Amino acid sequence: MKLRFAMIGGALDSFMGPVHRLSATMDGDAEMVAGSFSRRDEKNRAAGERWHIPVDRLYTDYRELLAKEAHSLDYVIICTPNSTHIEIATAAIEAGLAVACDKPVDRSLEPAVPFARFARDKKALMMVTHNYSGYPMIREARVMCAKGYLGTVQRVVVEMPQGWLQGMIATAGREPEMWRLDPDIVGPSLAMADVGTHAHHLTEFVTGLRVTSLFAEKNSYLQTSTLENDANLLMRFGNGASGVLMVSEIALGDRNPFRLRVYGTKLGIEWIQEYPERLVLKEPSGNERILYRGHSADAESTAWSRIPIGHPEGYLEAFANLYSEFHRAVLDRKANRSGTGYLFPTIDDGVRGLRFVQAALTSYSAGRWTEIDGGES
Amino acid sequence: MKLRFAMIGGALDSFMGPVHRLSATMDGDAEMVAGSFSRRDEKNRAAGERWHIPVDRLYTDYRELLAKEAHSLDYVIICTPNSTHIEIATAAIEAGLAVACDKPVDRSLEPAVPFARFARDKKALMMVTHNYSGYPMIREARVMCAKGYLGTVQRVVVEMPQGWLQGMIATAGREPEMWRLDPDIVGPSLAMADVGTHAHHLTEFVTGLRVTSLFAEKNSYLQTSTLENDANLLMRFGNGASGVLMVSEIALGDRNPFRLRVYGTKLGIEWIQEYPERLVLKEPSGNERILYRGHSADAESTAWSRIPIGHPEGYLEAFANLYSEFHRAVLDRKANRSGTGYLFPTIDDGVRGLRFVQAALTSYSAGRWTEIDGGES
Amino acid sequence: MKLRFAMIGGALDSFMGPVHRLSATMDGDAEMVAGSFSRRDEKNRAAGERWHIPVDRLYTDYRELLAKEAHSLDYVIICTPNSTHIEIATAAIEAGLAVACDKPVDRSLEPAVPFARFARDKKALMMVTHNYSGYPMIREARVMCAKGYLGTVQRVVVEMPQGWLQGMIATAGREPEMWRLDPDIVGPSLAMADVGTHAHHLTEFVTGLRVTSLFAEKNSYLQTSTLENDANLLMRFGNGASGVLMVSEIALGDRNPFRLRVYGTKLGIEWIQEYPERLVLKEPSGNERILYRGHSADAESTAWSRIPIGHPEGYLEAFANLYSEFHRAVLDRKANRSGTGYLFPTIDDGVRGLRFVQAALTSYSAGRWTEIDGGES
Amino acid sequence: MKLRFAMIGGALDSFMGPVHRLSATMDGDAEMVAGSFSRRDEKNRAAGERWHIPVDRLYTDYRELLAKEAHSLDYVIICTPNSTHIEIATAAIEAGLAVACDKPVDRSLEPAVPFARFARDKKALMMVTHNYSGYPMIREARVMCAKGYLGTVQRVVVEMPQGWLQGMIATAGREPEMWRLDPDIVGPSLAMADVGTHAHHLTEFVTGLRVTSLFAEKNSYLQTSTLENDANLLMRFGNGASGVLMVSEIALGDRNPFRLRVYGTKLGIEWIQEYPERLVLKEPSGNERILYRGHSADAESTAWSRIPIGHPEGYLEAFANLYSEFHRAVLDRKANRSGTGYLFPTIDDGVRGLRFVQAALTSYSAGRWTEIDGGES
Repeated sequence: MKLRFAMIGGALDSFMGPVHRLSATMDGDAEMVAGSFSRRDEKNRAAGERWHIPVDRLYTDYRELLAKEAHSLDYVIICTPNSTHIEIATAAIEAGLAVACDKPVDRSLEPAVPFARFARDKKALMMVTHNYSGYPMIREARVMCAKGYLGTVQRVVVEMPQGWLQGMIATAGREPEMWRLDPDIVGPSLAMADVGTHAHHLTEFVTGLRVTSLFAEKNSYLQTSTLENDANLLMRFGNGASGVLMVSEIALGDRNPFRLRVYGTKLGIEWIQEYPERLVLKEPSGNERILYRGHSADAESTAWSRIPIGHPEGYLEAFANLYSEFHRAVLDRKANRSGTGYLFPTIDDGVRGLRFVQAALTSYSAGRWTEIDGGES
Repeated sequence: MKLRFAMIGGALDSFMGPVHRLSATMDGDAEMVAGSFSRRDEKNRAAGERWHIPVDRLYTDYRELLAKEAHSLDYVIICTPNSTHIEIATAAIEAGLAVACDKPVDRSLEPAVPFARFARDKKALMMVTHNYSGYPMIREARVMCAKGYLGTVQRVVVEMPQGWLQGMIATAGREPEMWRLDPDIVGPSLAMADVGTHAHHLTEFVTGLRVTSLFAEKNSYLQTSTLENDANLLMRFGNGASGVLMVSEIALGDRNPFRLRVYGTKLGIEWIQEYPERLVLKEPSGNERILYRGHSADAESTAWSRIPIGHPEGYLEAFANLYSEFHRAVLDRKANRSGTGYLFPTIDDGVRGLRFVQAALTSYSAGRWTEIDGGES
Repeated sequence: MKLRFAMIGGALDSFMGPVHRLSATMDGDAEMVAGSFSRRDEKNRAAGERWHIPVDRLYTDYRELLAKEAHSLDYVIICTPNSTHIEIATAAIEAGLAVACDKPVDRSLEPAVPFARFARDKKALMMVTHNYSGYPMIREARVMCAKGYLGTVQRVVVEMPQGWLQGMIATAGREPEMWRLDPDIVGPSLAMADVGTHAHHLTEFVTGLRVTSLFAEKNSYLQTSTLENDANLLMRFGNGASGVLMVSEIALGDRNPFRLRVYGTKLGIEWIQEYPERLVLKEPSGNERILYRGHSADAESTAWSRIPIGHPEGYLEAFANLYSEFHRAVLDRKANRSGTGYLFPTIDDGVRGLRFVQAALTSYSAGRWTEIDGGES
Repeated sequence: MKLRFAMIGGALDSFMGPVHRLSATMDGDAEMVAGSFSRRDEKNRAAGERWHIPVDRLYTDYRELLAKEAHSLDYVIICTPNSTHIEIATAAIEAGLAVACDKPVDRSLEPAVPFARFARDKKALMMVTHNYSGYPMIREARVMCAKGYLGTVQRVVVEMPQGWLQGMIATAGREPEMWRLDPDIVGPSLAMADVGTHAHHLTEFVTGLRVTSLFAEKNSYLQTSTLENDANLLMRFGNGASGVLMVSEIALGDRNPFRLRVYGTKLGIEWIQEYPERLVLKEPSGNERILYRGHSADAESTAWSRIPIGHPEGYLEAFANLYSEFHRAVLDRKANRSGTGYLFPTIDDGVRGLRFVQAALTSYSAGRWTEIDGGES
């Protein structure tokens, strides 16, 4: 029998709702049976209709959804604004459900730490969708780092240059009015919280290293918002390596060529999301070796592929790889099996992202290197 | 209510079965409710279990499936070996169902022509999955050609270089034993029928031109099979343009960088499947303009996208674009609406592919330019 | 003491004159001391002034130059129109000089064969500048083929797509008036003779194979000239391999991405002139290895480099590699040393190019496969 | 008559000597007539022989060269170790000669400032070879910035990742013994002084902006040297823009893909040295336009080209573009013409580079943002 889930938030006009739905159902082992896609009835119904949810299983209030549907669900997906994640996730966990929640966990670190403790105490099964870790070649890279192919990592450069915000300004001739630019809604950080946490997570996911301290520079090039839309951070890692993390929303013309470069003493590696099926290995000689999804030495990327090489996979398949593992964990729990090694980001990863943002804000204010609190998670 | 379909053929170890299932269900508007995935009971059940088909809706004989399930189905997907396509499709059409069928339509042209006539007489709704035409940037290119942005097309180069067969030989040290290399099973052509028909279809789909004659060279570099695994064809088009079509399965190391170049009097365009979200426009100055999915002038590619640019789409989304249109047609027919402009390949496209292969075989034997019969379709 | 040469043809407004001068003098071991750059006094003097040739060593008649300067020269460079190459080269050889001559040797094969015999009888030292063979990574590829790294070559694709002619038409709105489009001046072939001979030479240079027969399609998309500006040829090689050669001057927007792909049973290789320092090795696994100039396994490319990798070399350095070897041969002869293994194209290579063009014209007229005469050279 | 120069330093085993010789003589308007290539007689003679300098014009002591040759020279090229640049340049200027000197001007800022004042007082003609500014597409980019095509520059990322040092270590299994790693010889900075000054110069050259303050992180991953081989700097510009500058010698496998990205409010641009003939324009739509050398809108790149597009130029041609302008200045001065707009880097540019390095060292020590002294130059 398929796993059954409901989605909270994620109506048709959102970016992430359709992505979660597609990813969770891609392998045909789960179905969406109920939804609270929007608090506005009209939007809620439109999504329900598109996705063939019976009208009597649509709810404008997520509390009602949990009250009436929890017994028939295995998990909920939360794609609401950041400020509501914890409240909803808490209720879902209390209702005994597993939770897949979009990132970041919250606008700021403060509420996230006690929530994570709560989730841990409840032994809750919770995924926070730092989805880039689902790409097959990223997982290949992670195994290569873990097996020591790179030697000792010395240098990391990670960047997510985007130009959408400046593109909107250049096209419209004025700054857009958006809730994302309002600190009351999104919290004290825009670019670092929104995409910087992805870059931070991917760096630690691949290298297996921890960013221990950072120095941050951030900029707002808008007249109407003080939230940063551009940030450059210097990083130091636990093993003595150092590096750079760059995010921007005013990098005009850049679509999102999320790029990770890791340089070790024996080998360097490079991955760019625009060509996600390639992993470039940089050799001491200066020559390169290019591994392609499904053709790699350790077969790691094959394990995370759905179709043979020569037929491009992309973002959705990578996102679905998170759900594959999440589903495995949900099934194991359902069957009282004690599974291990689930490869999806947890609430602890989500909290680490917020610690990273907080340290960056502190560093920027103080103009000095700042340590990232290791904290409980 | 979702559309309901059954799949015939396409068990777990096949390439195309999982692809059809994923593509047909991607948008959540159709569900697979029955299957005859294999004539072998064990394989049939394994696929049914993976895809959550109830045991009592699994059939090892497609005839039984049609007999018992036709009333509860909207369409069937046929992914069986080429030699059985027509028999099964005929039965499905007789049962009043719409049909999505893998290509080529048959091993050869002879049986396909009367079948196409039959399908036409029955006003059957039938899709033949020349799936590369589903890529957003391919559809963008098609609109650009149709609107005259290229001026008069003069030169076309299309190629599907693959190295899988030689890769198997190089790795194993001997030639593989495969049903695909047996002319009794696949017919008189391998590379031209299997991938050449894709290249031929895409060329005509994008340019709006017809290949009117060709000169073919084909080669088998195997000891154990005379079927060509490599072919190069010269083409002439109805408007006076000319070009080259290349397919190979011994192009060692090539994964499948399906590449189409069309040169007009005003503009040239280039698309490569390995970077499917880019369309290169080649200008008279020698400079280039690169359009990306979702950012293009005519918004054609946006219409065929599921997620914003910066988040790579691939093969499955393109394949699903065929099913989007097929579903639209099925729904229209179900509702007795007379829809138009469905953008998916039909049985006529499938028959044209076989005419192309037949002309190539004739040209090769005779060592001369050969016309492609325009025929009924 | 530096070698001394004169240049015949190649005034400032020509493409090839400055290229020959730069290439021949790049290494500082030769100097241009006299010239007959143009039969028009004004143009001749302008070139002489730019290149610091004393006025009394400038000649509008090459015969006068040879008469007065032969004793003080080691060689001449011939960059005049094709129709005059043989006459001038003959005179220079009679005067006891070595000769570097642009390609093709002549408008057609007929006069070239007896000239080659004459040059051979005279034991003349003569280079015909099929210059693409000078690229370090091309020479690396040649060594790899010779050492058997590719196994048996099965498939070759070589192309020189250029769009300059259609670019001129698209920009100007009309066809250009050019001597190059006049068959009386350039002979019966344009694209195949002008760039096709380069593609043919490079193919044989790298693979060590001979093209034994071909099938040619050619097109003129001009109103005002019947000379082909676009041609596609199928090739068969002596070892059983086959392939495609494409040249075009109406491939709108293509600058000249001269591209050579050679597929063997063990390895495939690919080189593109726009990134001349890279050689892509295609492995049976489908992964790639990219060799860079100066970093390659056999050190061949290092031997033909002037500056370390990371500092791009290009066309002129490759052209100069021909002159390096030509100078070595001139010096050996001067010193009565019997040197060997000079790696530059000779009159025999030039004649082979003309045989290739003649076979292509025959094939096109007859509409059938045509053998290339092995001839004396 | 050709300009005449002598070279001091730059023997055959050096990188820069041959590069300067090739670049200065590429256009045939200057010749090297004397040299003091090495203080060791053997090496000095070997270089003289290779480059056809008469034995009696070779000097192991540069003072002797200046004493005996100054009257017959137009300029000298200085390619000695950094610590000797000022001493030699001072002597050459005293001797009335123009000077082309490699960068950096000295090991540190202190002696460079009074030297620059001296040179200015003497109205000396002096070029410091920040050679990357000679690339045609870099000059195209510079004109585009100056004309306002980019709008207001907001973000700059410049990087010179090299892996040669780590490559030597990985290959040899131990750290190399090199004079470049000795602070007594090269001064207090390695990567920032050696390549960082290039990146800094190119950034200011293209954007027309000044880096006003910076924050520096630097690292030495060697056991045997404390000099940094890796550095990441945050930059703020006079107009409010910000950015990142990265240099490394332990970026394993990177050859030297010197990359500059400039993001304005209207347009972004990107240039990578490994493909030096391309300039990517990033548009607000997210689409791209790629300009190629010789095909660009403002014809700037055509002016700095030697051969037509389709025939790759590289490092030497770019370097020679500096000498073209330097020669023009020398000729103007020789003719007592007052020329202007010479596009080559001067001693002031050289001093600015050292100010940049000094500020970086200060910032690193203090762990805070540091202003770059505008100073006299």
